[in-house]
Amino acid sequence: MLIVQKFGGSSVANVERVFNVAKRIIETYKQGNDVVVVLSAQGDTTDELIAKAHEIDLHPSRREMDMLISTGEQISVALMAMAIQKLGYPAVSLNAFQVGMYTNTTHSNARLKKIHTERIEAELDRKNIVLVTGFQGINKFDDITTLGRSGSDTTAVALAAALKADKCEIYTDVDGVYTADPRVVKDARKLKEISYDEMLELASLGAKVLHNRSVEIAKKYNVELVVRSSLNNAEGTVVKEVCNMEKMLVSGVAGDKNVARISVIGVEDTPGKAFELFSLLAKHKISVDIILQSIGRDGTKDISFTVDRDDLHDALKLIKENQERLTAKDVVYSDKIAKVSIVGAGMATNPGVAAMMFEAMYNAGINIHMISTSEVKISVLIDEKYTEDAMNAIHEQFRLAIER
Amino acid sequence: MLIVQKFGGSSVANVERVFNVAKRIIETYKQGNDVVVVLSAQGDTTDELIAKAHEIDLHPSRREMDMLISTGEQISVALMAMAIQKLGYPAVSLNAFQVGMYTNTTHSNARLKKIHTERIEAELDRKNIVLVTGFQGINKFDDITTLGRSGSDTTAVALAAALKADKCEIYTDVDGVYTADPRVVKDARKLKEISYDEMLELASLGAKVLHNRSVEIAKKYNVELVVRSSLNNAEGTVVKEVCNMEKMLVSGVAGDKNVARISVIGVEDTPGKAFELFSLLAKHKISVDIILQSIGRDGTKDISFTVDRDDLHDALKLIKENQERLTAKDVVYSDKIAKVSIVGAGMATNPGVAAMMFEAMYNAGINIHMISTSEVKISVLIDEKYTEDAMNAIHEQFRLAIER
Repeated sequence: MLIVQKFGGSSVANVERVFNVAKRIIETYKQGNDVVVVLSAQGDTTDELIAKAHEIDLHPSRREMDMLISTGEQISVALMAMAIQKLGYPAVSLNAFQVGMYTNTTHSNARLKKIHTERIEAELDRKNIVLVTGFQGINKFDDITTLGRSGSDTTAVALAAALKADKCEIYTDVDGVYTADPRVVKDARKLKEISYDEMLELASLGAKVLHNRSVEIAKKYNVELVVRSSLNNAEGTVVKEVCNMEKMLVSGVAGDKNVARISVIGVEDTPGKAFELFSLLAKHKISVDIILQSIGRDGTKDISFTVDRDDLHDALKLIKENQERLTAKDVVYSDKIAKVSIVGAGMATNPGVAAMMFEAMYNAGINIHMISTSEVKISVLIDEKYTEDAMNAIHEQFRLAIER
Repeated sequence: MLIVQKFGGSSVANVERVFNVAKRIIETYKQGNDVVVVLSAQGDTTDELIAKAHEIDLHPSRREMDMLISTGEQISVALMAMAIQKLGYPAVSLNAFQVGMYTNTTHSNARLKKIHTERIEAELDRKNIVLVTGFQGINKFDDITTLGRSGSDTTAVALAAALKADKCEIYTDVDGVYTADPRVVKDARKLKEISYDEMLELASLGAKVLHNRSVEIAKKYNVELVVRSSLNNAEGTVVKEVCNMEKMLVSGVAGDKNVARISVIGVEDTPGKAFELFSLLAKHKISVDIILQSIGRDGTKDISFTVDRDDLHDALKLIKENQERLTAKDVVYSDKIAKVSIVGAGMATNPGVAAMMFEAMYNAGINIHMISTSEVKISVLIDEKYTEDAMNAIHEQFRLAIER
């Protein structure tokens, strides 16, 4: 088998951990597999490099920033190659130039465009374990780019797709995807498998196991992903296209407190007002999540929506500056709310699911402010203080602790 | 003019120094010059990276070591680009891949083979100050190589040759080449100019201003070199082909204490014995400097020679292991000796120079053990304790303090 493995920065933070990871890699190699490993920068390296840059300029050019921070992953792969060789196995490290990992030209948040596989395949033919720098690429001008948040996951999945790998193992500090955050719901159960779409919803709902972009690539190229712990040998969770869905209506519950609600009150009930509001926010890169619009009354309507809490201040300022144009009588907000969601691929065709969720909330005495649904998820907006209670009530209601 | 400048690791060790160097670079740029700057890794970065590697393996593969330590220069050039941009001037950093800095395949001690100039020239056309990583290259397999000791000087001179630069300025912590080490000879005078050949001899004699390899390249491609201080605006010393030689018989005096003498006693006076001895040492990478062979007597001869003190132990061990084959009666040595040399391009055609040197030694009451001469230098071996006295006596004898 050809296996791509990815280890994060904390997994290679010091010499002891480097050797631990080296041994894991060698285990896979000794089973007769071809192994390609993607590594992030060691521990705090990236932060230290960013601090160095900020000493010079708080807003350095992104091109030079990418040139600077891409060195972190190169250090990781070179050290790992040394550790594997020290343990008696053949290894070679490669950076984005050596692989030919091409991206578009957007520095600090580049998208992978084309990965050359010749060099990696040649090294695999020589029976080398191949260590590849995560997070970075080069653009058509031969400048170094970086892929943004969780870029190394993206590198690993994209490499697995390009190499037509049999699977892509993402090693992290949790041992898989759970039915709920185990710190909140003590009965939370690790899932054996989950579909790409469910994983995408979970990621966007604040279960930060995998970044959306890497799951999107996995789905597009049908790469079998495994999320595993780098600390133990537990089996992990498989993310793939087809799951045993019939029995698994709801696969997990997630809570997200990074939510604020804004209500724009008394907007003129004429066409285009909502469009005007949301295009204004979009123009300023403010993402809107759940939207609720009241039915018009007295020729006006209220528009409520949620944004990330970080964006609350900017969004309010923007709306107030444009209050007249938006014909809004008032703007109110709350940052004491949270979003609780259930995710499950079988949901769309099972209308009872929403009702069961609302029942759980009713029984727990939790008021629902807003509701949003999609093919594979239902989200409700509630008071922040009830987040944990809501998650436990839902987990209980759907008997998620019991394996089916 | 097109000017290549090189700054060492201590010149960019912290943010204050980075800005100081940035200002110097900008000064040259503002005078209307095209500026290409070669940088070493910051301060102790390379040592820290080596320490990281040694935690894993005391003898890591050289290929991976080069992959690791080459990141140091990339950090330097990215930070310098940020500093120059912060000061309001255009800059771009380039690594060995981006330039196309090709070497042979000898990791950790590679030789430059071919430097592509297209990217640098394109950046200069865009009016950018171009910052290039020193010390590193890539080989025909796209693997990263490093150039060995003082590799950044070599990068700078080779770049100046490839770009047909008008001059190459090497910024260092001394402000030029002196007639003697100013810490030893208080009258020592900074030379305005010196020829390549003299500079080569001085470098090999322990005046560590420039590494030989960079001077060799400068000589081969006729690159005008300037050695200047990065700490002040003093004029520095120009190294070039034609100097005002007639008046300058002797341009400097150098002392070297990293010397040990070995005498192989009572070797059979038959052809090939000396060859056997020196090929044995060469095979074990031990460099021999001054050689003296006594006239044969009683069918035997004595062979004396000098080696670096670091090599003394290995050389003695080697000779003793082969004592029988070499037909040597005894092996004796001294590590309490030093080599003092004078360098000057006019020397070969002025037989009086050697006599003047010996006279200086005689007047100072210093015994000469061995003598070696070349086109541009005369070296004598003396007791180590007289090194400083000898240097001062010679400096005085040739009136080197007086500019001619």
